Amino acid sequence: MARPSHREKILAAGLRVVHARGFSGASVRDIVQAAGVPQGSFTNHFVSKEAFGLEVLDLYFDQARALLNATIGDEALRPLARLGAYIDGATCARGDDDGMRAGCLLGNFSAEVNELGEPLRLRLAAMFAETERALADCLRAAVAAGELPKTLDCKAAATLVLAALQGAILIAKAQRSPAPIERMRKTLFATVLAPAA
Amino acid sequence: MARPSHREKILAAGLRVVHARGFSGASVRDIVQAAGVPQGSFTNHFVSKEAFGLEVLDLYFDQARALLNATIGDEALRPLARLGAYIDGATCARGDDDGMRAGCLLGNFSAEVNELGEPLRLRLAAMFAETERALADCLRAAVAAGELPKTLDCKAAATLVLAALQGAILIAKAQRSPAPIERMRKTLFATVLAPAA
Repeated sequence: MARPSHREKILAAGLRVVHARGFSGASVRDIVQAAGVPQGSFTNHFVSKEAFGLEVLDLYFDQARALLNATIGDEALRPLARLGAYIDGATCARGDDDGMRAGCLLGNFSAEVNELGEPLRLRLAAMFAETERALADCLRAAVAAGELPKTLDCKAAATLVLAALQGAILIAKAQRSPAPIERMRKTLFATVLAPAA
Repeated sequence: MARPSHREKILAAGLRVVHARGFSGASVRDIVQAAGVPQGSFTNHFVSKEAFGLEVLDLYFDQARALLNATIGDEALRPLARLGAYIDGATCARGDDDGMRAGCLLGNFSAEVNELGEPLRLRLAAMFAETERALADCLRAAVAAGELPKTLDCKAAATLVLAALQGAILIAKAQRSPAPIERMRKTLFATVLAPAA
């Protein structure tokens, strides 16, 4: 197996640092130190901190997209069970092994989006839109399968599910507790995602 | 009327700067420039940037608490209408006059909470808890008034409402559009907050 290049080391360590400290909070110095590479190699591989930020965000979203495919895309499950698997995956991936410190990188970047420049903002907006479309398609499949009521506005419900996940992860981060995520999840499945009678 | 003191100018301008740029993103230099006061007056009035952050957060939450009192506390309205007034106030206060740029200061601070130190984190956690309790009390009043089903777990539903608001404001910020907030609100009132049949 080839040894990871400086570029790969910077991206892998950089994702951890940026996830923990925020994009504005993480300096290039912090990132190269965590990667164990000389400071100069950052500028060899990235034309700017923003160019690095775009690649880090893509690296993170590759994982988020893999989770979507493994859950929402799992045709062995009924549509509501796919949504449940996604919500579990998206919240458990946050884990409380770190006291809910990391949160979701998309949410963290969104909070400081005014400082990030337009290319990063547009990438974030597109990632939310892609996730929302996948959730809406799955909600439509649940309606078609008779699991959810025909009256549900699936696009609007997908926004609520995504917003509830993002908000609960944010509150869990401030409270250093998974309890807000558990309560959000409980209500979601007792109301919006409750099987049609 | 007395002229505002340097201290008051720093807090008022500092709230705007921190709301727009984030706490890590806003330097003391940015804050004193926006306040139009000499750099030295910051250290005259605040022992640290964190001490300033606590006062700015309290100043913001005074407005949030006033909104809670004016809506959730409005006994002239039925409980569900109080919740609607709160949700409208909390999201319209974000306004799209600034392209949804500001977001909610509590959410923004939560995203960068790892960088803020424990006193700020505890203050944020307490503010979320206070808001959640007020929402849960109002949901209980709606259940008691027969507006919502007796089966509703009001504490858990309050978390969902708060999380959905926070998440939708965050997504609206990334997408520079009020549409996510409108869709979240529509689903909330068609499902979790739908009047009992």
